[in-house]
Amino acid sequence: MLKLYDTPISGNCHKVRLMLSILGIEYEKIPVSLPDGEQKKPDYMAIHPFGKVPAIDDDGVYMWDSQAILVYLATKYGNTDWYPDDPVERGQVHSWLSVAANEMFNGPAVARAMIIFNREGDQEKVRKAGEATLKALDGWLESRDWLACNRPTIADIAVYPYAALAWEGHVDMSAYPAMNAWIKRIEALPGYIGMKNMPRPV
Amino acid sequence: MLKLYDTPISGNCHKVRLMLSILGIEYEKIPVSLPDGEQKKPDYMAIHPFGKVPAIDDDGVYMWDSQAILVYLATKYGNTDWYPDDPVERGQVHSWLSVAANEMFNGPAVARAMIIFNREGDQEKVRKAGEATLKALDGWLESRDWLACNRPTIADIAVYPYAALAWEGHVDMSAYPAMNAWIKRIEALPGYIGMKNMPRPV
Repeated sequence: MLKLYDTPISGNCHKVRLMLSILGIEYEKIPVSLPDGEQKKPDYMAIHPFGKVPAIDDDGVYMWDSQAILVYLATKYGNTDWYPDDPVERGQVHSWLSVAANEMFNGPAVARAMIIFNREGDQEKVRKAGEATLKALDGWLESRDWLACNRPTIADIAVYPYAALAWEGHVDMSAYPAMNAWIKRIEALPGYIGMKNMPRPV
Repeated sequence: MLKLYDTPISGNCHKVRLMLSILGIEYEKIPVSLPDGEQKKPDYMAIHPFGKVPAIDDDGVYMWDSQAILVYLATKYGNTDWYPDDPVERGQVHSWLSVAANEMFNGPAVARAMIIFNREGDQEKVRKAGEATLKALDGWLESRDWLACNRPTIADIAVYPYAALAWEGHVDMSAYPAMNAWIKRIEALPGYIGMKNMPRPV
């Protein structure tokens, strides 16, 4: 059975949990405790060279990085709706996988980590970076229901968790109606699962 | 003819120039001046919602983000050597596309930008992040000639420029022999082209 190296509170791990649920894939969770530094221990670093969660072990095939795992799962177990063959559609999906890896992480996700893990850093600067990212995301979604290809793809799965959890990092989400409507569309997908504070409590 | 929205000094733009050269695709450069803020002007923001370089216009198909452009070009004009069909190989390539978007950018590339554009920020912290990234890259390459799939792929093209230019950001590259050997292998690829300070002057 597929094993997910998992930290419950991690939005990056939730991307993978959400995809596995949508695709109906059974799996086993192997807990990785960040407070205990388990992600930086040699056994785990042999699986993930940067010592981060998530990673998977699919019957001996190891894969690390949440975006890479989404590409792998959609290619192996999904269909070309989730990860397209067409070069233009594929490129469109990828623009947002890069945003998920960089802008969504180094804005909303880091702002949240500073609050919930009590991490040091310039909270104001990171929160502003988070707001700039959500503003661009909201602008994009003003004329679209989904990030790419006019349908749900792994781009939406990759960007969703740290958008939905941005308020936990004290990022103001009220100014982004198109983004909030897209969040609701994702939360209505067949197979959708949430995590702590996701969907956002009323 | 394909148009590249291009800034000569940008390593992200060079990923695309290098791929276009390797694939033998003719193109025209549309200069985007970062000092003049051209990347944040409405006309360009309509192409790239985050206002960054590069972007391309391939006969009316617009694509933004350097990794996404590599995926698009390799899928449309390349072959499955550069961007694989196999789910495991594809996932392996993607782990490094995420590293290119995040760790390679927010370490070596930002360290370099602080020096060459005289940008404000905590140089010491960013340089240390850059060194940690290069250390992980070097460790990975100790037992491999290429980042993924035992052959050159878009993963190598995406990670190479900011690795090769790291010294411009005062990141010490001397401790990473496996990485330096991999840099030389890329610089020997058919169709390789450099840019200012690339390959590194002796």
